[in-house]
Amino acid sequence: MLNTLGNLLSLTTFGESHGPAYGGIINNFPAGLEIDQDQIQYELDRRKPGQSAIVTQRKESDTVRFLSGIFDGKTTGTPIGFIIENENQKSKDYDHIAQSYRPSHADFTYDRKFGIRDYRGGGKSSARETINWVVAGALAKQLLKTVEINAYVSSVGDIFCEKPYQALDFSLTETNEVRCPDAETAEKMIARIKEIKKEGNTIGGTITCVIKNVPAGIGEPVFSKLQAELAKAMLNINACKGFEYGSGFCGAKMTGKEHNDLFNTDFTTQSNLSGGIQGGISNGMDIYFRVAFKPVATILRPQESVDRDGNAVTVEGKGRHDPCVLPRAVPVVESLAAFVLADLYLIDKTRNINHY
Amino acid sequence: MLNTLGNLLSLTTFGESHGPAYGGIINNFPAGLEIDQDQIQYELDRRKPGQSAIVTQRKESDTVRFLSGIFDGKTTGTPIGFIIENENQKSKDYDHIAQSYRPSHADFTYDRKFGIRDYRGGGKSSARETINWVVAGALAKQLLKTVEINAYVSSVGDIFCEKPYQALDFSLTETNEVRCPDAETAEKMIARIKEIKKEGNTIGGTITCVIKNVPAGIGEPVFSKLQAELAKAMLNINACKGFEYGSGFCGAKMTGKEHNDLFNTDFTTQSNLSGGIQGGISNGMDIYFRVAFKPVATILRPQESVDRDGNAVTVEGKGRHDPCVLPRAVPVVESLAAFVLADLYLIDKTRNINHY
Amino acid sequence: MLNTLGNLLSLTTFGESHGPAYGGIINNFPAGLEIDQDQIQYELDRRKPGQSAIVTQRKESDTVRFLSGIFDGKTTGTPIGFIIENENQKSKDYDHIAQSYRPSHADFTYDRKFGIRDYRGGGKSSARETINWVVAGALAKQLLKTVEINAYVSSVGDIFCEKPYQALDFSLTETNEVRCPDAETAEKMIARIKEIKKEGNTIGGTITCVIKNVPAGIGEPVFSKLQAELAKAMLNINACKGFEYGSGFCGAKMTGKEHNDLFNTDFTTQSNLSGGIQGGISNGMDIYFRVAFKPVATILRPQESVDRDGNAVTVEGKGRHDPCVLPRAVPVVESLAAFVLADLYLIDKTRNINHY
Amino acid sequence: MLNTLGNLLSLTTFGESHGPAYGGIINNFPAGLEIDQDQIQYELDRRKPGQSAIVTQRKESDTVRFLSGIFDGKTTGTPIGFIIENENQKSKDYDHIAQSYRPSHADFTYDRKFGIRDYRGGGKSSARETINWVVAGALAKQLLKTVEINAYVSSVGDIFCEKPYQALDFSLTETNEVRCPDAETAEKMIARIKEIKKEGNTIGGTITCVIKNVPAGIGEPVFSKLQAELAKAMLNINACKGFEYGSGFCGAKMTGKEHNDLFNTDFTTQSNLSGGIQGGISNGMDIYFRVAFKPVATILRPQESVDRDGNAVTVEGKGRHDPCVLPRAVPVVESLAAFVLADLYLIDKTRNINHY
Repeated sequence: MLNTLGNLLSLTTFGESHGPAYGGIINNFPAGLEIDQDQIQYELDRRKPGQSAIVTQRKESDTVRFLSGIFDGKTTGTPIGFIIENENQKSKDYDHIAQSYRPSHADFTYDRKFGIRDYRGGGKSSARETINWVVAGALAKQLLKTVEINAYVSSVGDIFCEKPYQALDFSLTETNEVRCPDAETAEKMIARIKEIKKEGNTIGGTITCVIKNVPAGIGEPVFSKLQAELAKAMLNINACKGFEYGSGFCGAKMTGKEHNDLFNTDFTTQSNLSGGIQGGISNGMDIYFRVAFKPVATILRPQESVDRDGNAVTVEGKGRHDPCVLPRAVPVVESLAAFVLADLYLIDKTRNINHY
Repeated sequence: MLNTLGNLLSLTTFGESHGPAYGGIINNFPAGLEIDQDQIQYELDRRKPGQSAIVTQRKESDTVRFLSGIFDGKTTGTPIGFIIENENQKSKDYDHIAQSYRPSHADFTYDRKFGIRDYRGGGKSSARETINWVVAGALAKQLLKTVEINAYVSSVGDIFCEKPYQALDFSLTETNEVRCPDAETAEKMIARIKEIKKEGNTIGGTITCVIKNVPAGIGEPVFSKLQAELAKAMLNINACKGFEYGSGFCGAKMTGKEHNDLFNTDFTTQSNLSGGIQGGISNGMDIYFRVAFKPVATILRPQESVDRDGNAVTVEGKGRHDPCVLPRAVPVVESLAAFVLADLYLIDKTRNINHY
Repeated sequence: MLNTLGNLLSLTTFGESHGPAYGGIINNFPAGLEIDQDQIQYELDRRKPGQSAIVTQRKESDTVRFLSGIFDGKTTGTPIGFIIENENQKSKDYDHIAQSYRPSHADFTYDRKFGIRDYRGGGKSSARETINWVVAGALAKQLLKTVEINAYVSSVGDIFCEKPYQALDFSLTETNEVRCPDAETAEKMIARIKEIKKEGNTIGGTITCVIKNVPAGIGEPVFSKLQAELAKAMLNINACKGFEYGSGFCGAKMTGKEHNDLFNTDFTTQSNLSGGIQGGISNGMDIYFRVAFKPVATILRPQESVDRDGNAVTVEGKGRHDPCVLPRAVPVVESLAAFVLADLYLIDKTRNINHY
Repeated sequence: MLNTLGNLLSLTTFGESHGPAYGGIINNFPAGLEIDQDQIQYELDRRKPGQSAIVTQRKESDTVRFLSGIFDGKTTGTPIGFIIENENQKSKDYDHIAQSYRPSHADFTYDRKFGIRDYRGGGKSSARETINWVVAGALAKQLLKTVEINAYVSSVGDIFCEKPYQALDFSLTETNEVRCPDAETAEKMIARIKEIKKEGNTIGGTITCVIKNVPAGIGEPVFSKLQAELAKAMLNINACKGFEYGSGFCGAKMTGKEHNDLFNTDFTTQSNLSGGIQGGISNGMDIYFRVAFKPVATILRPQESVDRDGNAVTVEGKGRHDPCVLPRAVPVVESLAAFVLADLYLIDKTRNINHY
């Protein structure tokens, strides 16, 4: 379904950066789940602007209000509607781009597609849309229960977390502003981002996500392979430029003899270059993937650009923006992963006649 | 829709490696397009086994038979049904894996998911499924007409085509067995694959795809961003481990100042690190992306593995397999790209009130 | 898509009778349409409770608030989110049915399906959900422009509007409380409903809907025939028990010689027993259909029933209810018809290569 | 999804009356079901032309060939592809309508929509498409196992089976050519059809369908109500003009006091005017509905009509056609009902957290 995430468990969303509110509808969520609202707010707070010195200073409480589908604290199986009011729009900041196009933004493409656009804060193309995904993902996490999903910032610019994920303690991810569980690397990353911010510049990076305790069998044979659904979800995140899972682009340099994951007699594999997925279906091993983010397009410097009529103009970098989107993207990556998994879990419930 | 490619223009498929036939149904294809059947066969021949010394020697004519939706050589707008008969199954080759699991194949995961599997040639998990996609993609290419889609092998193992795509002459792609338009690199790649084949081993690589002449405006704002639909399609290809577009994973190391694509007054951009897509919507510049493929899992050597009951067994590498899947995957990548684009083109026809 | 109306133009909704709000998201609505908000409120007022003596006296302002997708009064092509706050819940009225099942309501089936239900006012099963459909339908009507959709109450109990629709002046529909354009019949219907109301009883009826100015070509060959999409939409309305179009159930008594619609040389037909649709596709003639509604299940009398444990109980008829749902269902029928048509219109834009 | 039946369990089809074959793909069918092929052929034979003196004499073996998704006699959970070859086309019979439009057929509407049509035997608009549905329905019946679905011809023209369905013995349905389980009525119906056939005329009628043993809980709250999905499926059948369930159009004449189904203490209801569905969800009682069919449009007499240019022409009734479509439509109605139910069954497997 166009503009909807998920096949059976589905998320449809709305909202623009400077409109009155964001929100969405989650359909086909199972009934009877006790919802932990604090946990949802916790996830929203991880994505929230203004949470630290290295992110945008827009002030939003980012509180979700559920409007249906939850009764006496439990899901009822009917559509879950929710909204998050926008509170701190500064639309005046955007008057200067009503007629101009910011480089590497969606201003031009929206105009060409629709012939009209809400230019305030990027309108629909704003990454604030991801707030909806975190709400849905937080619910999906609660549904999945035993599944553990941990994303972290694995690189900022050319600073990489060199340790393999197996050597990291994910309980440390939230202990620093950049969300890298390796304290030493985190420190370097934070310093780099602060430096970049001072320059009015921005910087890219990567997020690694590790999913534990997914049983074998999740994912579909064709067109809805687990990795395909994950890739689609991730590539919808603003600024995302790439996705790889398991051995990824490195695997493309290897031979079959090196790459094959030999079985143990308990059906685990000795290596896990497959990344927990074989033939599009989970095999019970850790699922891990990496997502690339380009630097945020809004830099706080004047840039040469054009207006709607093709006249050369200078666009000033205004508004409140992230020098590096990575720290706030961590819960977004986790949320999408959780939602995709929950969807494929539900579908898998229907796949085997023995379930009947 | 589960197990279906596309949103409005859709492809639903069936077929197993050693079943009687592959086939599919293309829905919502526009009416009145004159179909060039030779062109379709040409694309199928590019994917065909046995086409050269560096691919599998399974012999198939791979002829498609259209069963509906085309009348007097033109599409009628009604569902296009097609089949491709399997001819050269050697199912006996697979008796030894009826009860055993090949490493890094889908044998184990299918068994766990469904409790039953067609083990012959991998059954549904075989890459022979991609034949259906080439048929659909060949039709989509004819629909798109002026759009040019050129994929090529950009690396095999650690042999990379170092030239940027702009320096390549795509008319040379088909002049060598490996489908790399740079003759010198192609030669090295072919030598490497032959060497690997001799060892009974396999090797991975990457394919780069370049799409020219897509007008600005194709792609949707949320969840159906152009890059997301491309990524989903590509990650469904067997052995695909990663996708990146535009600056990709390299872009994650850059700063905003370096990465931003400044506009010219004709709305082209001076650089194109965006890869022809901004905010999920094409901007009229070249679209380019890169796909990573792991080495084929079947190696012609004995490997230690397990059977269904968890007993240690040795699995022999039998059957006819590709030492390197890349050359045959080139038309598959192009086909999926064409189909995804055609789908989003059709949708875009409905987006602007000025069309009414 | 489950719990979503429409194929390309889609409506996903949420809300429960006594929850904080109703609302929905309209996806893939074309960009650039100037929205007439008064017209939307007008349609909502036609559905509003408390509008006359013969409908429920629940007091709601039923004001819709658009949260996205409209900018400077025009649609932007991005998802249109909207909510309607509930204002006049009297949830206490429903404490008595928390553990009991009302006859011919959805209390029992929701409990069995989900194991939990919001019993207040029927929760999700309340017909107040149709408020969302009127918002979406009002927008669809504005999109369709020249198409005229007129529904009216054609029977209440055994009082029928005997005149064929061609003999009616639809501008009179809104001149009486029951929404029957034949003044004399309307008077009888109103008298009958008042009588029924006095008895604490309820009564059923039918609505006829006539759609003019649909060009030939709208509808799809298989599984999305125009009449099938209309039927599906109508049968989703609470209390709807049947749908027929053109000759309908009467046509089942006829012979081919009597029933065939002979062509005029301008491609109109001499009769129109086909109801404006042939082979699932509009033929340019008037589309007309009829929808049957059972009497409202809530009667203001004690009824013998059971509780969750199967104990016999007496259920009192409380709450504020419609003695006859028909007058308020007229805009609902029109709205769904408009939405279905708009969806198929958009799809049709993509069906012919000549559009390219 | 456009041109696809079902939400999770889905059927996508192709085929034209005089093309080489019909066929389809069933997606998301559970794995591990042992398929009874004879039962499938039995259902196809019930729909087959030439089965008796009162149906069309086109000779087809109507044998289905499964091409995937079944292994060792059991479903594998992967897409089930199938084809039925056309054998007895007499395309020459249709040369006379290549440029002319038959009254009450889809010739004109297809031409207007697509600008091209396969005129032979009506092309895509032929009711021979329903053969695909019977294959899918036969599989769905096997999946549903304990559910009993019995359709029968309840009227032909003005000859009605006056007995309520509860008084009928469905084991008698197949004992006569017209498929009415009441022998006396059947005889009258057959006589009427023979008479009509002799006149070169055709006649309409109704089919009643009764579904037993559906547990409470099947169907979805909004837009996928059980009755809505049934109505959509039925209205896609060629010649279908109406659908009603439970009390249907008669219920529209009743009062709430008369219509309400009072509960017994075992949660059955004393009457079942609801038709086994409340709030869109099955309540465990018999589901029953009625479908209206207009007379077949092809009559074996000359009719005045028009050609593509609007010139008056006389269209001869040629080809082999049914004087009454009802007897052959019985298995079609059952098949669609089975498929719709199976789809909603699968979905229901995912609705309650207790299933996890």
